[in-house]
Amino acid sequence: MKITSVNNELVKETAKLLQKKYRKDLFLLEGVKCIEEAVNFGLEIVHLFVEEGEDLFKDFENKIETTEAVLSKISSTETPPKAVAVAKKIKREWSHLYKKVILLEGIKDAGNLGTILRSACAFNIDAVILYGDTVDLYNPKCVRSTVGNLWKIPVFEMNDLSVFENYERIATLPKSNNTIWLKDYIPQDKVLIMFGSEASGLSEELKNFATQNVTIEMSDKVESLNLSVSAGVIMYKLFAN
Amino acid sequence: MKITSVNNELVKETAKLLQKKYRKDLFLLEGVKCIEEAVNFGLEIVHLFVEEGEDLFKDFENKIETTEAVLSKISSTETPPKAVAVAKKIKREWSHLYKKVILLEGIKDAGNLGTILRSACAFNIDAVILYGDTVDLYNPKCVRSTVGNLWKIPVFEMNDLSVFENYERIATLPKSNNTIWLKDYIPQDKVLIMFGSEASGLSEELKNFATQNVTIEMSDKVESLNLSVSAGVIMYKLFAN
Repeated sequence: MKITSVNNELVKETAKLLQKKYRKDLFLLEGVKCIEEAVNFGLEIVHLFVEEGEDLFKDFENKIETTEAVLSKISSTETPPKAVAVAKKIKREWSHLYKKVILLEGIKDAGNLGTILRSACAFNIDAVILYGDTVDLYNPKCVRSTVGNLWKIPVFEMNDLSVFENYERIATLPKSNNTIWLKDYIPQDKVLIMFGSEASGLSEELKNFATQNVTIEMSDKVESLNLSVSAGVIMYKLFAN
Repeated sequence: MKITSVNNELVKETAKLLQKKYRKDLFLLEGVKCIEEAVNFGLEIVHLFVEEGEDLFKDFENKIETTEAVLSKISSTETPPKAVAVAKKIKREWSHLYKKVILLEGIKDAGNLGTILRSACAFNIDAVILYGDTVDLYNPKCVRSTVGNLWKIPVFEMNDLSVFENYERIATLPKSNNTIWLKDYIPQDKVLIMFGSEASGLSEELKNFATQNVTIEMSDKVESLNLSVSAGVIMYKLFAN
């Protein structure tokens, strides 16, 4: 199949997935490597657009050959990728077997969210909770920043945290009283590690919900770390093996 | 003093500092917090532009009150900051007392560079080396990403690494043979930790220059971490106290 017009109906439908309100069951994968990782994982690919003349995804049936202009219309990067796919979101159910869980409150930066999901996969986190008003997980920039790891880890948007009543609940905070150093903290079997947004930190509600406060030991010269770095350091220290 | 025209000569000169080729001795500080941090540190401020009607930097002599349009012209953010300053770069000499040094090869992302400098300050690094073709340290996005830490740590652009002949030289690499895990590595007194770019990793030249290879222990599901996260984790593990 070949599509060369940016006004083609399927192209227009696909371009809508750049907007959050249209990403109900489907989302966009941009770039060859990202699509390969998704295919290897077993993600369901609904449509696959490939630039004409490029010898890509040979075994894929129903591949759509198309132009750079079309690829540009259905992608979010400055330079259009050689391939764009439409994939089905994975729906998962919460499981009480999730023991190592991180929570991100009010995270607004898609790059930070994607980077943290990538680190969470690397450091054996069982699930990630998005709490409060957060950027969309399927935002193309977030998908890119996970570098093919988005679908490897369960992510849940939650407004009710009652499933964590019997977890140890850690507030990660800047230097202050009432916190212990990360190096001195040994996590319990079931633990929820909570991170606030870079702009406003953790809300009072979540600070009150915490059973323990933890701070990364660092020089007094510096007020705080970048959120992705904080999360990476804490997950490495507690859960890498 | 008050300037309201975007065509004012000083405004035009200041706007040039958005381009690397004009940043010889001077660079831009965007935003009140960043300028405050720089002033507290003792950085020399050459000009200070403040939005008219805002009650900012009261004690500062020769403050220039100006319009949003001027602030927009002399800054790089989408929403112009309430204040922009022109500051003098700090020139530093290499010292053999620098014992904990990191090297960034070919780093192209200004946000990553700024974030790594922020982490380097937090984790007591003595100096940072920029090697190969890298983004400009005084790029406004890099300055912003350091969140007021740029001037707290010595940074050197180097093409000749002979000062590191008697250092232990660590290549940070993805999983492979010939590397030891980060958890098992204990740094010597004088150590250079080398990080490659996110796109291409360390060059063969620097791999050959290394005396030891170190890898962050992580899940087999994930190929690698974001560069800022890798650097943060390694610096935390080795040098936080």
